[in-house]
Amino acid sequence: MHTPTTISIIGTGNVATHLFKALSQHAILPPDSSIRIINSRTLNNLPDHSDLILISVKDDAIGSVAQRVTGKADMIAHTSGSVSIDILRDCAKHYGVFYPLQTFSKNSELNYLEIPFFIEGNDAETIDNLKTIAQSISPKVFEADSSKRKRLHIAAVFACNFSNHLVAIADDLLQEDGMDYKVLLPLLKETVRKLDTLPPKDAQTGPAVRNDQKVISSHEDMLADHPDRLAIYRLLSSSILSSLQ
Amino acid sequence: MHTPTTISIIGTGNVATHLFKALSQHAILPPDSSIRIINSRTLNNLPDHSDLILISVKDDAIGSVAQRVTGKADMIAHTSGSVSIDILRDCAKHYGVFYPLQTFSKNSELNYLEIPFFIEGNDAETIDNLKTIAQSISPKVFEADSSKRKRLHIAAVFACNFSNHLVAIADDLLQEDGMDYKVLLPLLKETVRKLDTLPPKDAQTGPAVRNDQKVISSHEDMLADHPDRLAIYRLLSSSILSSLQ
Repeated sequence: MHTPTTISIIGTGNVATHLFKALSQHAILPPDSSIRIINSRTLNNLPDHSDLILISVKDDAIGSVAQRVTGKADMIAHTSGSVSIDILRDCAKHYGVFYPLQTFSKNSELNYLEIPFFIEGNDAETIDNLKTIAQSISPKVFEADSSKRKRLHIAAVFACNFSNHLVAIADDLLQEDGMDYKVLLPLLKETVRKLDTLPPKDAQTGPAVRNDQKVISSHEDMLADHPDRLAIYRLLSSSILSSLQ
Repeated sequence: MHTPTTISIIGTGNVATHLFKALSQHAILPPDSSIRIINSRTLNNLPDHSDLILISVKDDAIGSVAQRVTGKADMIAHTSGSVSIDILRDCAKHYGVFYPLQTFSKNSELNYLEIPFFIEGNDAETIDNLKTIAQSISPKVFEADSSKRKRLHIAAVFACNFSNHLVAIADDLLQEDGMDYKVLLPLLKETVRKLDTLPPKDAQTGPAVRNDQKVISSHEDMLADHPDRLAIYRLLSSSILSSLQ
């Protein structure tokens, strides 16, 4: 199998749209390549034969789309972090996963050079092909089987989803006193920027890592009327403290 | 009192060093102003009279430094987020707080334009003077009494200290499978960048906010052999879910 020249991206969400844009603008593909984006509901304009179909729809819909495009491509891959490669087993000779680890919003410009791609394939040829395509838009391309992908996903939940929620709690705390989360953004950005060079354990600051019980008690007093926040404060403070041992 | 022209910064830590640099390089001060940085242990080179002394030492040491510089300046302020203004009550006619909300590392270049300053003073003149100085290095200058500063501090613990710890947990999870936190940085940076325009509640993504019990259960299974991580996963997931109501 040569490098795919007819690529059909199925989906109309943010991931599909961004992948279409990234591949159209940046991918180094053979001349006469064509890349289409196809509505997953109608499958209008899906060629009878594609070299590669990328299924980029909600996790729950991958199985049914896969059935409907069975036999329509040499190689079929999905773009999900948490769905097993096996869901594509009967759809094509070559099948795999093409997973960009990033959060895609409708109107934001992304630097594709910064997006890590995680590739899985049912054979070496599939892995090579998917890697080649990913490498043409990003220098950060890794192989990851379904178990590694699952681990990446849960790690992203801790590092990103949960962190965002902590900013939401900070926002609530500040709004109760006439301020809001935006005053924290420079500090938050610097906290993240430090991680470019310093591992998170070495970068840890705050009362818990100093075991500053005076400040911790005063914070706990302040949170006393809000048991949910207090529980989070206590659990994360003690987790920081025990991570030092 | 005119705008201070003799400013003595007491401290040798990161905050003192960065403030000295910021004020020396960027502050718009009267001609013939002088800014010094003074070792808090020896107080060598502390002028007999300063217009302003900024005490920028560890929280626990502010009180003793304050005693030793009593009477040496028209105006004395400390730079701490969590210490009350009252600690300076007997040191000078004018006293206050000059608190930069940022994390300062030894070797990092900071964009001072991005650092919010929170000012408190025992009278209008002190507030005006401290504000003028802060405004000459940052456009983000706010008044905040000791109660507001305490709230900012606890909000920063949630948004920054705790988030950093969650990245440390993600790092552990990834290292157990031969990866590390650096693959998460583009996602983490985009998560924070989105907050420039989208409040954290609206920006929330992940299985908890979708109430995706299938993914949540599968993550809980994966964390089963590590009760600390499991407890954090459950508490934060249920906090996200209940914040929707």
